[in-house]
Amino acid sequence: MEILVYQSGINKIIEGLTAADLPELLKDKSNVIWVDMDAPTSEDERVLLDVFHFHPLTVEDCRENRHYPKVEEFHSYIYFIVHGVTANTSPDRFTTIELDGFLGPNYVITYHHEMFRSINNVKQQLRTTPIACQRGPAFLLHQILDQVVDFYSPVLDDFDERIDKLEDDIFTLKRPNNEILSEIMDLKRSVLRLRRISGKQMEILHRMSRGEFALIPEEMRPFYRDVYDHLVRVVDLAENYRDLISGSLEAYLSVVSNRLNEIMKVLTIFSAVMLPLTFIAGVYGMNFDNMPELHSRYGYYAVWIIMAVVAVGMLMFFKRRGWIGRSSEEERPKV
Amino acid sequence: MEILVYQSGINKIIEGLTAADLPELLKDKSNVIWVDMDAPTSEDERVLLDVFHFHPLTVEDCRENRHYPKVEEFHSYIYFIVHGVTANTSPDRFTTIELDGFLGPNYVITYHHEMFRSINNVKQQLRTTPIACQRGPAFLLHQILDQVVDFYSPVLDDFDERIDKLEDDIFTLKRPNNEILSEIMDLKRSVLRLRRISGKQMEILHRMSRGEFALIPEEMRPFYRDVYDHLVRVVDLAENYRDLISGSLEAYLSVVSNRLNEIMKVLTIFSAVMLPLTFIAGVYGMNFDNMPELHSRYGYYAVWIIMAVVAVGMLMFFKRRGWIGRSSEEERPKV
Amino acid sequence: MEILVYQSGINKIIEGLTAADLPELLKDKSNVIWVDMDAPTSEDERVLLDVFHFHPLTVEDCRENRHYPKVEEFHSYIYFIVHGVTANTSPDRFTTIELDGFLGPNYVITYHHEMFRSINNVKQQLRTTPIACQRGPAFLLHQILDQVVDFYSPVLDDFDERIDKLEDDIFTLKRPNNEILSEIMDLKRSVLRLRRISGKQMEILHRMSRGEFALIPEEMRPFYRDVYDHLVRVVDLAENYRDLISGSLEAYLSVVSNRLNEIMKVLTIFSAVMLPLTFIAGVYGMNFDNMPELHSRYGYYAVWIIMAVVAVGMLMFFKRRGWIGRSSEEERPKV
Amino acid sequence: MEILVYQSGINKIIEGLTAADLPELLKDKSNVIWVDMDAPTSEDERVLLDVFHFHPLTVEDCRENRHYPKVEEFHSYIYFIVHGVTANTSPDRFTTIELDGFLGPNYVITYHHEMFRSINNVKQQLRTTPIACQRGPAFLLHQILDQVVDFYSPVLDDFDERIDKLEDDIFTLKRPNNEILSEIMDLKRSVLRLRRISGKQMEILHRMSRGEFALIPEEMRPFYRDVYDHLVRVVDLAENYRDLISGSLEAYLSVVSNRLNEIMKVLTIFSAVMLPLTFIAGVYGMNFDNMPELHSRYGYYAVWIIMAVVAVGMLMFFKRRGWIGRSSEEERPKV
Amino acid sequence: MEILVYQSGINKIIEGLTAADLPELLKDKSNVIWVDMDAPTSEDERVLLDVFHFHPLTVEDCRENRHYPKVEEFHSYIYFIVHGVTANTSPDRFTTIELDGFLGPNYVITYHHEMFRSINNVKQQLRTTPIACQRGPAFLLHQILDQVVDFYSPVLDDFDERIDKLEDDIFTLKRPNNEILSEIMDLKRSVLRLRRISGKQMEILHRMSRGEFALIPEEMRPFYRDVYDHLVRVVDLAENYRDLISGSLEAYLSVVSNRLNEIMKVLTIFSAVMLPLTFIAGVYGMNFDNMPELHSRYGYYAVWIIMAVVAVGMLMFFKRRGWIGRSSEEERPKV
Repeated sequence: MEILVYQSGINKIIEGLTAADLPELLKDKSNVIWVDMDAPTSEDERVLLDVFHFHPLTVEDCRENRHYPKVEEFHSYIYFIVHGVTANTSPDRFTTIELDGFLGPNYVITYHHEMFRSINNVKQQLRTTPIACQRGPAFLLHQILDQVVDFYSPVLDDFDERIDKLEDDIFTLKRPNNEILSEIMDLKRSVLRLRRISGKQMEILHRMSRGEFALIPEEMRPFYRDVYDHLVRVVDLAENYRDLISGSLEAYLSVVSNRLNEIMKVLTIFSAVMLPLTFIAGVYGMNFDNMPELHSRYGYYAVWIIMAVVAVGMLMFFKRRGWIGRSSEEERPKV
Repeated sequence: MEILVYQSGINKIIEGLTAADLPELLKDKSNVIWVDMDAPTSEDERVLLDVFHFHPLTVEDCRENRHYPKVEEFHSYIYFIVHGVTANTSPDRFTTIELDGFLGPNYVITYHHEMFRSINNVKQQLRTTPIACQRGPAFLLHQILDQVVDFYSPVLDDFDERIDKLEDDIFTLKRPNNEILSEIMDLKRSVLRLRRISGKQMEILHRMSRGEFALIPEEMRPFYRDVYDHLVRVVDLAENYRDLISGSLEAYLSVVSNRLNEIMKVLTIFSAVMLPLTFIAGVYGMNFDNMPELHSRYGYYAVWIIMAVVAVGMLMFFKRRGWIGRSSEEERPKV
Repeated sequence: MEILVYQSGINKIIEGLTAADLPELLKDKSNVIWVDMDAPTSEDERVLLDVFHFHPLTVEDCRENRHYPKVEEFHSYIYFIVHGVTANTSPDRFTTIELDGFLGPNYVITYHHEMFRSINNVKQQLRTTPIACQRGPAFLLHQILDQVVDFYSPVLDDFDERIDKLEDDIFTLKRPNNEILSEIMDLKRSVLRLRRISGKQMEILHRMSRGEFALIPEEMRPFYRDVYDHLVRVVDLAENYRDLISGSLEAYLSVVSNRLNEIMKVLTIFSAVMLPLTFIAGVYGMNFDNMPELHSRYGYYAVWIIMAVVAVGMLMFFKRRGWIGRSSEEERPKV
Repeated sequence: MEILVYQSGINKIIEGLTAADLPELLKDKSNVIWVDMDAPTSEDERVLLDVFHFHPLTVEDCRENRHYPKVEEFHSYIYFIVHGVTANTSPDRFTTIELDGFLGPNYVITYHHEMFRSINNVKQQLRTTPIACQRGPAFLLHQILDQVVDFYSPVLDDFDERIDKLEDDIFTLKRPNNEILSEIMDLKRSVLRLRRISGKQMEILHRMSRGEFALIPEEMRPFYRDVYDHLVRVVDLAENYRDLISGSLEAYLSVVSNRLNEIMKVLTIFSAVMLPLTFIAGVYGMNFDNMPELHSRYGYYAVWIIMAVVAVGMLMFFKRRGWIGRSSEEERPKV
Repeated sequence: MEILVYQSGINKIIEGLTAADLPELLKDKSNVIWVDMDAPTSEDERVLLDVFHFHPLTVEDCRENRHYPKVEEFHSYIYFIVHGVTANTSPDRFTTIELDGFLGPNYVITYHHEMFRSINNVKQQLRTTPIACQRGPAFLLHQILDQVVDFYSPVLDDFDERIDKLEDDIFTLKRPNNEILSEIMDLKRSVLRLRRISGKQMEILHRMSRGEFALIPEEMRPFYRDVYDHLVRVVDLAENYRDLISGSLEAYLSVVSNRLNEIMKVLTIFSAVMLPLTFIAGVYGMNFDNMPELHSRYGYYAVWIIMAVVAVGMLMFFKRRGWIGRSSEEERPKV
């Protein structure tokens, strides 16, 4: 548990306090107190219950760590859960960590089980300049949420790049089929998860920015609306990516099927051209006593000519039908 | 019919009472009475009508046992139906049992046709400590509903595991095709059912937690909201699984088709390579009198060389087109 | 036109009245009058206009017989249309008949072009005991609607059975393909129709049960809500069946394609094994003068051995790739 | 521009008036004036602006002729756009013409660029009997809208018939594939257009019938609701047809694929049966010196017997697998 | 930064002013001031903050240039973002540029990073005649938005044309498969983007036209509603195109598969006809000593007749099954 207190009198951040100082600090309404609990002990949790008097169910929710984003108002505080992206998240495995927290009249509590990048960033800023605290706890919370949402941007860019690369791979079919298919599945799952999480987060910010909670004063709302706008963009891009990935799957299936088509054509042509030639050769391999052609001087050469005529005739027939030639040639560079 | 009465005066649970004691018990508003009817007799049902004066239609609904979750408010009581998962439920056959019940000013009635695990658990707890009853019947009902919803969690984990295993099976195609397909169908049906039941249940808890019913006092709402949150999670996971299963079906269809593709390629290559060789052999099997090659000393060996050239040339042609070789080899370990 | 009047004074149903008696009967507000018009004459319709003074458009709607379920409130009466299932309805041809009607302060009018089973049932009950009329016309109407909805249950059971049988047929493919496909199409059409009709009906009952109409007094609402609950179930099952049928179509397409897959495999194996053998035979059928093998004593037997080695080698190659053997065998019993 | 004025004093329709008479006519509030503009001149448009003082944007909307149905209320009039079906509309090319119009306290203006059948019908009726005008301009407008919507019915019947025929064609596959496919595409496009247009029209009528506009008095609402009900039916059928057409596409794809399946089976059987026979013939065409069978007296006949055994054995194998015979035969009459 | 000021006293547009003149100009409430910022410098942005006192977040939003259309109300001004189509947009790459802006009591600010065609058009008009300014800033803004939306029309026409051409290409299959597929994907992406952007824009205009903002007076609303109607049309067409493109994909997949079907048929026929003939030839190439037919005088000719009978018989069999002939011939011109 780390406690940062902004005292407006001296316009400074004080650190190095302990849980025992909290009751005193909370009494002074001009303080802005930030209690950050990183992988909290059960002792830390007792502080939530005994000093802040939060509802036991919310503290239990904090501990459980498998909830969706939500926000709930209680008599004198707001309880919220948001999700930040993990540092090692990737388009084919989108993972998030839960950030639980409370906003009170003069405090912000944050609670997380693992290192949380956005939290660290805000703390770093605060140590440099206490601006984020000057406008009260609602602004401090805004700073934190803004940081959380900012970390979604690189993930979205990663998605963009991966989908672009995926589409290239699909049209060139350079990679094995099942590998592409399996990547499409992974991306789809990730993007659905991103859509779900950010959708719920957007809803929370919407509620925070429209003035539902008295603890977020009116002049703070444009700031929350700004975070909300970012989330609208995230959700929108997530939906966009979902559509693109669905399109990729369709394209993939179609490209694979086109390819089979092309192979089928080659088989058809080969079989269709070779079979009659083999048949002709078979005919003159028969052992009938009375086969005049066999004794003709130029019979053998005539048969070669007949075979050539048959082969060329068939190839021309296929060409006229458009089964070989131009389209097949043009397609090749793409394949 | 089993009757448990919590008497706040002595802070104890009294058991072993009969229907005849009920009118007297109900008069004392400080009692918390729980009447659990397991596979009730028609006599038990008479108690509902004559002692509690419940609407005949609700009692009929109790008996019928094929209703969806719902909640209805009457003058002095709430009637509800929720569904608990059966003990032998599995991801490919998701089954539930109905729990009907009534909540009154100082009583909770539960009614079920089969053994109900959540009910037994709550009873067990009550016998150990009467905490669940100290805060009144609404809290007792919350305990029961919480238990009912808790039993959904292992089912969700089972789904998770099965879908993971299914996706492995799809990409390796180790099991027969129709068996996989049939499993996908079963899982889909189960998950749709889970989605439907839990969706309706969520709606009920939503109504209970937002203060629609006077019998659930305000301080109880966070507890009901907690159960509601669990159900939101269940519904969300159910939707997630539904998407994953749909994705599995698509993947399955695609993997099967990729496989056919691979087989087609082998056929093409074999046919395309063998047919011209067979043709050449056929040519020199002809019986023309005048076939100079036949009498050449090295004709036979020359033909073997020609055949080898043709075969190798064709294989190289296919390789250049990317139909054999690398991609086919890389894919094999996956298949 | 058949008139049944319940007189509360004598607690009896009087029958055998004519249109001429209606004005007098209507004046006594304690009467409960039921006028049932089965395939009405234009004279009957005049009664609706001249005696009951219904809006001409509603009477026209009654006559037209191709409307969707609806309910409309007028100054002193409610006009409704509901659909009952026909006696010869079946899952692949779901048909309904329209029942038009009016509910007034002391009367119920029912209007239908064909024999209507639910109407007959309620009449039969009334003749035995006038209970359904004792609580006024709104209860009488409830009895009729309850009967109408009850007749949906066997249809739903039929759907259930047919879909089960269909799924069996799909996995065994015992019936010709197009027959199965055509049945899927018929079932889908029926279930969409069932969904649409019952959805609209549900909406009507919802409006009737939530107290929108003054003619349906509050104490009647639980009864209408009960009918509404039945319809919710019908709609829900219809949606369920729709999903199952869509799933069946997917399964069917996939099973058919798996089958083609299996056939393709056999072709591949046969072709791939036979072609090289035929080629070898072709080689030793050539007529070159100088073919030492031909004159070897054991050449012929050696060739047989070579052929056997080639065939076995190829079969082993296919087996190693998983194209023949286990999976193919396991699948057979299912096909 | 054609002007029809109903004067309630003489209960007659007066015709043959010019734009110059309009200001005088409009002053008498008991008149019901209908100005129909068929392919209006710019002079006619001036009347709308100068005599009726309509908003310039609405007059521009009239002129532009590519708007969707809508209704807008202004201070003293309502402006509306509805779409009528053209005379030469067909299920594979559903086309509509725009009818713009205004409803004022004592006038109706209709504005269209082409001959409009519904308008002509209403005029014809008015000339016979002025009933449609006796109840004021809102009733006159209802008559026009009723006529417009009535012309949708034959189109819907055409759709019904075409879809039925289409489904027959699909299962018999009598017509070339691409022709069927192209028809499905045309029907789908038409039905989507029908759905969109009638949906927007329905919305307008809904607003007109629920009492949103003061110019449509309460006693007129059942009449507008009647038109609304017709449109609900149109929309519902359009959705139904859309579903049926989607189903047709699925059925078509499946039937085509079944057909390919059948052809594949024949190929498999032929190849699989012929290849080993050809191989056997090839074996005994080899020229080894030492092939004892060749010199056996009955060798040739024995080979024929072996070939017959192989062929019959293979056919039996395929039959046992269900690849030939019953199902294939039963299917034929359908194909 | 370009400043245009309309002074109602002299009814003229004054140009050539600088940022320094703004405070004075803003004081005179009868002025209509338009400040257009084309690729603004940071100095220009200071004007927004220091002279107009806009919220810093809005100015940041202006700068960032990757927002969706939106509108936000502040105390004395409205902030909006709309998207205009770029000059080089095309159906397979639909791109937009952002136009940010502010509407105040007597000013309009427009802010864009690139040359904006609509802005230039409105400026050009203003220089000719100051009509657009006479009705105040809300009307000026309407003129700008109207121009922005007007530039969507040619894009929609382009879509229409491209989709028509695409469908032709699909049915004739003149272009390589993957090229068509790739175009479908591009069009789909573009149309989804068009749908999304215009949908959000429509929402903004809806809010502007329904009287939500006091800065847009009531008499202006029909003008905004007019722009809104245009956007409704854009959205509707976008949805229409999306459906058509989805249909195109289905058609494309089906046409490609029909084609494969046709090729398969030819293969079947060739193989099925050639294989038995080759077999017969093989039989009489056998070297048995005792093959009486070989020594018959007309044996060779008889074999030719047998072969012809087999070939013709098979072709007739295929014709009877409908696999060759009519349908295949009819289809050819289409392919």
